[in-house]
Formats: sequence, C-alpha cells, structure tokens
Amino acid sequence: MTKLLVLIQCTDRTGIVADISTVLASNGLNIIVMREFVDLENNQFFSRIECVKEEDISSSLIAEELRRKIRGNAQVTVSVLPSEKRLAVLVTKEYHCLADILVKDFFGQLGAKVCCVIGNRENLSSFTQRFSIPFFHISHEERSKEQFERELLDTITSFDPDYIVLAKFMRILSGDFVAKFPNRIINIHHSFLPAFIGANPYKQAYTRGVKIIGATAHFVTTDLDDGPIISQETMHVDHNYNAYQMRVSGQEIERNVLNKALSLVLNDRVFAIGNKTVIFE
Amino acid sequence: MTKLLVLIQCTDRTGIVADISTVLASNGLNIIVMREFVDLENNQFFSRIECVKEEDISSSLIAEELRRKIRGNAQVTVSVLPSEKRLAVLVTKEYHCLADILVKDFFGQLGAKVCCVIGNRENLSSFTQRFSIPFFHISHEERSKEQFERELLDTITSFDPDYIVLAKFMRILSGDFVAKFPNRIINIHHSFLPAFIGANPYKQAYTRGVKIIGATAHFVTTDLDDGPIISQETMHVDHNYNAYQMRVSGQEIERNVLNKALSLVLNDRVFAIGNKTVIFE
Amino acid sequence: MTKLLVLIQCTDRTGIVADISTVLASNGLNIIVMREFVDLENNQFFSRIECVKEEDISSSLIAEELRRKIRGNAQVTVSVLPSEKRLAVLVTKEYHCLADILVKDFFGQLGAKVCCVIGNRENLSSFTQRFSIPFFHISHEERSKEQFERELLDTITSFDPDYIVLAKFMRILSGDFVAKFPNRIINIHHSFLPAFIGANPYKQAYTRGVKIIGATAHFVTTDLDDGPIISQETMHVDHNYNAYQMRVSGQEIERNVLNKALSLVLNDRVFAIGNKTVIFE
Amino acid sequence: MTKLLVLIQCTDRTGIVADISTVLASNGLNIIVMREFVDLENNQFFSRIECVKEEDISSSLIAEELRRKIRGNAQVTVSVLPSEKRLAVLVTKEYHCLADILVKDFFGQLGAKVCCVIGNRENLSSFTQRFSIPFFHISHEERSKEQFERELLDTITSFDPDYIVLAKFMRILSGDFVAKFPNRIINIHHSFLPAFIGANPYKQAYTRGVKIIGATAHFVTTDLDDGPIISQETMHVDHNYNAYQMRVSGQEIERNVLNKALSLVLNDRVFAIGNKTVIFE
Repeated sequence: MTKLLVLIQCTDRTGIVADISTVLASNGLNIIVMREFVDLENNQFFSRIECVKEEDISSSLIAEELRRKIRGNAQVTVSVLPSEKRLAVLVTKEYHCLADILVKDFFGQLGAKVCCVIGNRENLSSFTQRFSIPFFHISHEERSKEQFERELLDTITSFDPDYIVLAKFMRILSGDFVAKFPNRIINIHHSFLPAFIGANPYKQAYTRGVKIIGATAHFVTTDLDDGPIISQETMHVDHNYNAYQMRVSGQEIERNVLNKALSLVLNDRVFAIGNKTVIFE
Repeated sequence: MTKLLVLIQCTDRTGIVADISTVLASNGLNIIVMREFVDLENNQFFSRIECVKEEDISSSLIAEELRRKIRGNAQVTVSVLPSEKRLAVLVTKEYHCLADILVKDFFGQLGAKVCCVIGNRENLSSFTQRFSIPFFHISHEERSKEQFERELLDTITSFDPDYIVLAKFMRILSGDFVAKFPNRIINIHHSFLPAFIGANPYKQAYTRGVKIIGATAHFVTTDLDDGPIISQETMHVDHNYNAYQMRVSGQEIERNVLNKALSLVLNDRVFAIGNKTVIFE
Repeated sequence: MTKLLVLIQCTDRTGIVADISTVLASNGLNIIVMREFVDLENNQFFSRIECVKEEDISSSLIAEELRRKIRGNAQVTVSVLPSEKRLAVLVTKEYHCLADILVKDFFGQLGAKVCCVIGNRENLSSFTQRFSIPFFHISHEERSKEQFERELLDTITSFDPDYIVLAKFMRILSGDFVAKFPNRIINIHHSFLPAFIGANPYKQAYTRGVKIIGATAHFVTTDLDDGPIISQETMHVDHNYNAYQMRVSGQEIERNVLNKALSLVLNDRVFAIGNKTVIFE
Repeated sequence: MTKLLVLIQCTDRTGIVADISTVLASNGLNIIVMREFVDLENNQFFSRIECVKEEDISSSLIAEELRRKIRGNAQVTVSVLPSEKRLAVLVTKEYHCLADILVKDFFGQLGAKVCCVIGNRENLSSFTQRFSIPFFHISHEERSKEQFERELLDTITSFDPDYIVLAKFMRILSGDFVAKFPNRIINIHHSFLPAFIGANPYKQAYTRGVKIIGATAHFVTTDLDDGPIISQETMHVDHNYNAYQMRVSGQEIERNVLNKALSLVLNDRVFAIGNKTVIFE
C-alpha cells in the first residue's frame, strides 16, 4: 500500500477540485482526507490531500500530471508518506524548548530527526550530548555579525536540514540570512504577538498588569516579530506573579506552542501566504 | 449569484470526490469551501460543500444528478443559502439557555427563528413574552406521561420546527417521542458527559472534589445521556465552590456550549453516525 | 446572624494581620474567608475579609476601631452583606454585553441593580424597555463634547450609581469626566490589550493573521486603553475567519469577560493600585 | 533573613487567625502571604503562611508556640524556606511524564530532587541513566504481588523520599502499600476523572465519541481512581482522532497536569481532607 501526500497552491478557478480529484481517481488513488481553502481576497486555492493505492505508484508522475491539468503557476508537491524531515535547532541558554524536542526525537515521536544543535552560548552543550546529538558552539562575540552568520550558515548547510528551529535563540538574524530559508525558519516568541513586541516581553507584561500571557510560534521573515503566525497559546496570570514568575510559567506555554507548531509544520499542514498562514489541522 | 450548500453521506469508494466535483464543475458551480471525511471504520464518506454560480440554478436538479452519479445509498441534500431553520424550545425553570437563544433571535443573529417556547413550568412565561414569542405552559403534573407528551407533540408539530431544543428541560422524554425526531432534538446536559450521568451532576461533582466541571450538548436518542455529542466545554473550579456555586458557574458554560452546538447544527456542519458526530467547523 | 465584609488597603508592616484579626476576634467576629496580599514593590498591604457574628454589630464602629489600630493612611471599609450595588450602563449599538447584564438583572442574578441605560444611539431603546429599565438617548451629535458629557453626567448622577459600565459604548470620555469616577467606570475593550490598541481591533487582528483573539475588561483612567485590567479572555481563530467573523465570535468573549469583571467588582474582590489590580477570586 | 512556611490545619473557632498572627507578630515575623480557608461542612480551618524575619529564628519553637496557642488537634508544621523535597518516581513504559520530571530536575527547576526511578519494565532505564539518576528494574512478573511490593518498598524506603510519583506506572498498588504513604503518592490518571475510570480510557473516550479528553493528578488512596484530586486539565478533540491519536495528544496533557500537581505539592500548597483537596495557588 502506498500513501501519498499532495500539496497544492494555485490560482482559484471553477473546476479545480474536479480536475485534481479526476487525476487522482484515474490513477487509482483513493482520497482519505482532503482539505481545501479558497482565499477569496487573493484568489488563491490551497489543498492538502492524503490518498492511498494498493500498488506502488510514482509520486513524480502524479505531480507532473497534476501540474499539467491545473495549469497556471501551481505549486504542487507529491510525497510518499511517512516522510521524515531533518531539523537544525538553534539555542542560547534556555533549555525548555530544546529539551522537549530532544526528548521527543529520542523516543521517535518528533516526526523528524534533529541533525544538530547550535548554541551561541555553551550552556546547553552537555545536555544535548546526553542525547547523542552533535552540539556546536558558535559564539556571536568577538567577531562581526557577518562572520557569525557565515559560521552558522556553514554548519547548518553541512547538515542540509528541512527546517531551522529557533528554540529560544536570542540573536536577531539578518535579512540576508533569513532570505536564504523562506518559510523554513520557525521561531518561538515569548509573548502573545503583536502585544509586547521586542525585548523583555514578560517585564512589559508585568508592568502593564495583564491577566493573560502567551507565546507565539511563527515563520521568520525579514521583518522582526512579524512573520506568518503558526500557533499561539495563552495562560492566566494574576497579581501574585512577578516578571520572573511570569517568565517561568511562560516557558511552559512556549514549549507547548513550539511543539504544536512543529507538529503542524512537520506534517505539512501549514501554507504561508504573505503574512498569514492557512493551516489544515 | 446563487450559493448552494451540498451535504453528502455515502459509502466510500475511489473516485467519489472526482464524481462529485465533476458534477458541480459541469454545472458551472465554483467550490468555495469543501470539507470531507472518511470514516474508515464504517467505510462512510462525508462531505459538506459550499459552491457558487453567477446565474440561477436548480438545487433539486443538482441533487438528483449527484445521487445518480454517486449511486448506492447516498444521502444527498442541496439547499440554497442562506436558509433559515425553525426552532421549538422546551424549558422548565432555568432561564440562562433560553435567554441566550431569545436575545440572539431578537437581534437576528441566531441563524434561525424561534417559533415557540414550551415550558412544563410557568416560570419563563413572562420573560418569553417580552420577546413577542408565544409561550405554552404544558404541565407534566396531573396527567399521564403519554398525555403530557401527546400535548407536547401537538403543540410542536403545529409549528413544524426543524429542530427541538431542550434548553434545560428537566423531564425525560420517552423513546417513542424521541424516535419521531431522529437527530433533531438537541439537549444541553449539565455535566461533562460521561462523568456524572443522571441527576444532580453538580452535587456529584462537588462530592467527588473535581477541579473541572463541564457541560455537553448532544442529540437526544432513546438512551438517556447517550446520544451523539456535538459540543463540550469545561471550566476550572476549586475548593471555594460549593455545589450551588458550581451550578451557577456551570450555567455560563451550559449557555456557551448550547450556543456553540446550535451554531454548528444550524449551519449544517454536523453529521451524526451511530453514537458519534462528524463536525466540519 | 450578621455577615460583614472588611476591605483594607494600607502600608505594610509587621503585625498588621495580628492587629486586624484581634480587632475582629475581640468583637466576636469569626473570620470565614480572609485573603491578603503584600505588594512588596509598593509596600502595600491588601486584605478582603468575610466574617460573621450571631448577634447584630455596627459596621461603622468596627471600621473605626480598625482604622485606629492600623494607623497611617489606611483605607478601610466595612459593609453588611449582602449589599446591592447600582449600575448605570452606557451603550452605542451593539447588544451582546447589555443583554447579558439586563437578563441577569431581570432574574436577580446580577448582584446589582441596573438603574438606567444611556445610549448615544437609539438602537437599544426598545430592547432595554422590554426589561422595564429606563433608557435615555443622549446623542453625541450636533453638540459639543462638553455639552454631551454634561448631559451624560446629569443623567448618571441623578441615579447615583456605584459603577458606570461601558457596555460597548463607542465614544471616548474626556479626562475630566473620567476623573469624577475613579476606578468606578468599567470598560470592555474588544481586543486582548495591549495588542491592537485603538480602533478596529478585529480588522487589525485579521490583517496581522493572529491565531488568537481576545477581550479585556478594565477600569477607565484618563489614558485611553490603559487603565487597570480586571479580566481578560482569549479564543482561537483560524484562516477561515475574516474580520467580520472575528468580530461576531469576539462578541461572545467580550460578553463573558465583562460578565466576569462585573462579578468580581460587584463582589468587592478588586483593588486597584496604579495601573494594576489585586484580585481576590 | 529567614523565611518560614507555616502550615496549619485545625478545628475552626473565632479568634483563630488572631491567635496565629499574634504568635507570628510577637516573634517579629512579618507575614508576606497568608491564605486561609474554612471548610464549613467539616468545621476545619486551613492556613498557609509565608513570613520573614531579618534575624535567625527557630522554626520548632514557633511551631510549638502555635500548637499551644491553637490548642485542640491542630496539625502545625513550620519549615525554613527554601526546602527541598525528595522524589521517588515509578514508571512502566511511557516516557513523557518521566522526561519532564528528569529534565526539570537536571536544570534545577523541579523544586525537588529525584532520588531514584523504578520501572516494572526496563524500557526507560537508558533514558534515566543519561540524567545520572539511578534506575531500578523491579519486574512484577514471576513473583507474587506481595513479593513485588516488598521489593518496591525496600528500594523506595532506602532513599527515604518525601513523595512517590506514579509517572505512568501501570500496576495497581495494594491498599497495604498505599496505606504506608498517606497523601504522599501522586498518580497521573489518563482521563478526566470520574469519566472513564479503569483501563483504556482513551479507547473508552473514542468509543463514546467525546469532544474533550483530559487527565487527572490525584493522591492515591486505597480506593482505585478515587483519591483526592489535585489538578485536572482538558483538551478538545474531534472526529479526526482515533483512539491512538487521542492517546498521543493526551500525553501532552498528562505531562502538563502532573507537572502542575507536582509544583503545587512541592510548594506545600495542597491540603487533603477526606476525598478532597484545599489548594492555595
């Protein structure tokens, strides 16, 4: 039995679903789950289809046939399931997001393989190595930003990851760096965006006296704190929380939100369009 | 511009989506939203499709063509949107669920019209009439259950409602009565089913010392407290709550859950199969 | 049996709880619930105490004795429970927050009496009057802001309310007006503050592509959107929501958050200090 | 500066708060946080007090003075903060709860030290040892339940832990065993109790078609699944979840609920009385 995942983004028009499903049916593929969405504002059609066939089938031939039938500027990918993605994880000092990723990877429940962890601090080196994952310390100090990013890039590309996860990586990446990985860098931001943009969001939240704090996972774009949002969660706080306690409690949400976002992205459920995402949960 | 809603439940097979979407495309209908689900356990295919056409189009002809193409025992309905449902609401003493329905109806945001309210107590008569909705007091006392239900039935059927809402109606309806309205009676149960089945769930919750209470909206079947669940919500409680305070707080969730369930049902987003529901939110 | 509610805010010092509880015990008052909090940053002590005595007792004598014992600039109020507050409600066009308040008031579950509803539009006049509550239409048009606020003030003060509730009142009140009712004006803001300050927050939320929207109830201060926050809630949204649907869904949260905030304020559970609140739930 | 934690459970009476706070004040202790609750049904008084003094002070003398002043059958404990608890963790095969505990312990954020992990299966041995924590494999097979529990007991008592955490330990402990550690064994149950008591709750939840699943952390008593509940959480599921996916998603809640319960217990915020808990969050 072959299971295929079909991802399509194209201009919308009448008959598009008929065209797609006819290609699949004529190749003996039975649709198990089909999700679609039309963004009327941008006239874009999005679809995610899981389909199966008893016999073997060529995913590239199906992709080609779909592209021919859809015409126009369609983005079509067809892959055989299960497919395993590769992740590079960037960190600074905080462990909570990294630990969740490494533990799930260790027990084979991440839906991806962590190929390397890179820290601009050394704090998480020993922890990472306990999981038999290579850790690279690339300091941002005593060298230019260009030099720092060149070293990051060299290490990252040597592992050829599908996605780069900023798991509490506290350096701002340049537009040049980010542009090399469009919609492939996932960041966890320690506030409920767009509230408390920038540094020290928990301090800001404390000072403002909010009753809810949150976290946001998003694709990184060249505009800081402004990429397409993948997942957000919030939790209640009260006057008993100082900024430190908000930060400690917030770490639980950060971990959960990043975990949720990774699960969505690694299962190819997230399409990005402009500053937004279409997510087929 | 005509907007059609297509609902399909049938045996699953390869090519079913292609067949359906080809019928729609060949009639010039553009699919705006399509949701589908295959219940592998029961080999059932479910789909909810919203589609549009610039010109007028006959919904019954589309339905006929779909049935012909799908073959087998397909349940197909095609209706023109927006369509307005009619509700009969049954109550006893508590106002919170009824009030939410009447207020939304008054301001045209219910997505349905309340055609009548029936109470086995008179408590909510004055309140209902303030909204210019007819209230019928049909007491369950001093008559047999058969007689009581016959009067209920006469009043309800005289209004020919699409759905019957038990908005804190505290009498148990007989299997005979329920069987007359399959998947058309919606009940709000004041607990998180299947915890605390039966009477006095808040008292049970208090005695057990739970930290979360909830409410459940479900279709009524002949098995008490056991119909297909449409919506559930929970809220935190603590040791400061006694059974009475749990009940008062619980009323907020009951209202919200029933409101959510009605919104789903009235937008034709709920399919029932056996004891379960498939919901396209 | 007499039940007293004691509210104290004063400078913190060693022995303050002993002093307070000794006054209560020596008057034969048994403490049922005592909550206290020390704001270390501002060295402020807050306490809310419910206590009972079999016989009658003078609340003003207790208050005086507490003030004498505590010394310094203590704010002490002692009231007999249950006490009923009076509310003036200001609205514009939207019904959902007002309806919740009027319905609860109608059934005696608000914990307060609505003495009047004032609208700068006439839209909610008929609805309000169905609940036998006086409605005053005070337009903001064709007169100066000073004139508008003078008329508001005249009507409000004629009813001598404890609190003024801005239940989707879409005019900005002047600093002069607000200063007359310190921590006595409660507003529901249709976003999760401090995200999306200002006009059209749902449009802002849609444009930003957020996955969570929220609402905030707060005391109104002279700085717009910046008063002490009483309650906040959030809900998930996705790419299927346009700005209009976010607004409709948001109305449910707005209603629930305002309801929660009113319940806290009307039960004297909220202390305001600077831009923050201390809340004994 | 000395920081003391005072925990009191005793029969309620007028003047009890005055007596306690007078003892503290006369010893120069300033109350930072005081929480109290009166269980009217059982006439029990509960209090948790954090207080500070610039100089050193004997916790046992304070405890003695409090007991003398309160009289009756008071349970009074006074400890110096911070105090570190010791945990024994029992597991079977599933890693998610154990991993969270070991990671937090590794980074010093658990608020306790894990002294040993005991598994009735060997699955988690390698993982545990990566954190330099001793792992003991005590099989339940090929020996009597008495023998199994005797070995458990020997190993546990050799480490003298404050609490025993059943982190997905899938064996039922005998009443004799449990009675040795009253309110000192914490279990995570993989359902929202009291729904789906017993085995395979996710299978039960799937079969019933619920829209919410949950998890419960509770103290273990001699009645299975019936001890005082410490913490509960729920999450939404839909028709896309089969029993396996419910279990995988449920593991996130199980971890979060157990984490929350441990945080409460390890900070001495939980009092148990009969089948219930009083929790000062």
